[in-house]
Amino acid sequence: MTYELYYWPGIQGRGEFVRLALEEAGADYLDVARRPEAEGEGIGALTALVDDPGCERPPFAPPFLKAGELVIGQTAAILLFLGPRLGLAPPDDAGKLWAHQLQLTIADVVAEAHDVHHPIAGSLYYEDQKPEAARRAADLTQVRMSKFLGYFEQVVARNHCRTGWTIGDALGYVDLSLFQLVAGLRYAFPNSMARLEPALPRLADLHVRVAARPNIAAYLASPRRQPFNESGIFRHYPELDP
Amino acid sequence: MTYELYYWPGIQGRGEFVRLALEEAGADYLDVARRPEAEGEGIGALTALVDDPGCERPPFAPPFLKAGELVIGQTAAILLFLGPRLGLAPPDDAGKLWAHQLQLTIADVVAEAHDVHHPIAGSLYYEDQKPEAARRAADLTQVRMSKFLGYFEQVVARNHCRTGWTIGDALGYVDLSLFQLVAGLRYAFPNSMARLEPALPRLADLHVRVAARPNIAAYLASPRRQPFNESGIFRHYPELDP
Repeated sequence: MTYELYYWPGIQGRGEFVRLALEEAGADYLDVARRPEAEGEGIGALTALVDDPGCERPPFAPPFLKAGELVIGQTAAILLFLGPRLGLAPPDDAGKLWAHQLQLTIADVVAEAHDVHHPIAGSLYYEDQKPEAARRAADLTQVRMSKFLGYFEQVVARNHCRTGWTIGDALGYVDLSLFQLVAGLRYAFPNSMARLEPALPRLADLHVRVAARPNIAAYLASPRRQPFNESGIFRHYPELDP
Repeated sequence: MTYELYYWPGIQGRGEFVRLALEEAGADYLDVARRPEAEGEGIGALTALVDDPGCERPPFAPPFLKAGELVIGQTAAILLFLGPRLGLAPPDDAGKLWAHQLQLTIADVVAEAHDVHHPIAGSLYYEDQKPEAARRAADLTQVRMSKFLGYFEQVVARNHCRTGWTIGDALGYVDLSLFQLVAGLRYAFPNSMARLEPALPRLADLHVRVAARPNIAAYLASPRRQPFNESGIFRHYPELDP
C-alpha cells in the first residue's frame, strides 16, 4: 500500500511525527502537498480534500493520511493507525494504548511549544503578539518544559525492559516522536534545554540512538527532511529563550 | 467491572466527558477523588497514584481511569478504551477511528476554551492575564468557535444515516461530548453562541436529544452533575463575551 501524507509544505510541523514513522519503517509513501501541482498534487490536492463537500468524514486540519479509502486526521490518531502496520507499536493492546497515551501527551507539549509564539491567535503574526509571547515563554521554559520532559525521562527510566526505549524492548513511534520533540525544543530553546538536559540523560541518549538508525540517518541527510524554521511549530526567537 | 475515574473534584473539567459516557451506559463506576479521604479515596488517592514512583506507566495528569490493572490517562484515550465496552462506539474499526479522530478535535477546541482565560500560564490566575485573555477571546469567539462548531455541524449533516447523530444510526460517546461542548460554550459565551447558533441547527438538536436521554436526564438532575463554575474549563467572564 502506498500511503499518502497530506501536510503543509515548507515546514516540519506536526507532519514530521508521521514522516519519521514512515521513514523508519521504509514505508512506501507520498508527501502529497510537497509534490507538483501540475500532476494534480501539491497544496491544491490538500485543500481539495479538506474542502470536498462530498467527503462524509473530512479531516479538520492537516496532517491527514490517506490509506486506501480511509482518510485519517489528527497526528496521534494517524500514528495509532500506522504503528502496528509499520511494526512500530507494542504487540499487546495495553501497550498500544500506553503508546497512544504518551503520543497524546507529546501532542500536548507540542501545542504548548506552538502557542508560545502564538499565545493570542494563530491567525496573527508573531510580531503582533510579542509581549504576550515573552510572558508565555517564561512559563514554558521555566515550568512546563521541565514538567513534560521530566515525565518522559521517568517513563523511559521505568520501562521494566531497561532498553532505553520508551516501551518494551524495541523502538516504536513514541521514541521517534520523542526524538523530534527533543530536536525541536533544542532548536527553539537552546539555552533552556542546556539548563534542563543534565537532568534528562535518557532522553538525550534516546535522541542519539534514534538519529543513528540507518533509515532515520538517511532521512535526516536527505532533502526530504526540511530544516527547522520560523514558520513551523518549533521556532527560534532568541528573546523567548533568555 | 467497577471503573474508577480520577479527576479533580469541584469542577466538570475534562472528567465530564468521561462521566457522561459512564452515566449514559449506566456503568458501575466510582468518582474516586470526590469520595471521602477517610476511606482512602479523595484527592489523596489521586495524587498518590500520579506520584507513585513504583508505577511503570503513570498518567501525566487527570483525568485517568483505572480499569482493573490498567491505568489510562488522556480523555480521548479513555473514551477510545471505554467506547466499545460501554456500547458507545461504532462497531467497525474505521468507525472507531473516526469517532476517536472527532474526539481529538473536540479536545482541541476544549483546550482553546481553556486557554482563552489562561493565555499566558495555567499556573497564574485569570486576574493576572486579563488583557491577554481579552485579546485571545476575540479570536476564539470570532474565528475559532465558528470554525470548530461549523465543522461538527457538517459532520452531523454528512452522516449518511441522517440520524442527527454524529456517526451511523446510534448515539455514541462523541455525541455525548458534543453535548458537553455546546453546553460549556453556551455557559461561557452566551452572546457569541446566540450569534453562532442559527447556523448550527443540528448541534442544537443533538444537544436537546442527548439531554433527554433517560440516564443523562437523571444524571443532570442529580448532585453527581457539578455546576459550571469559574474554576473549570468553561468559565463565564462577561468581558470575554461582549
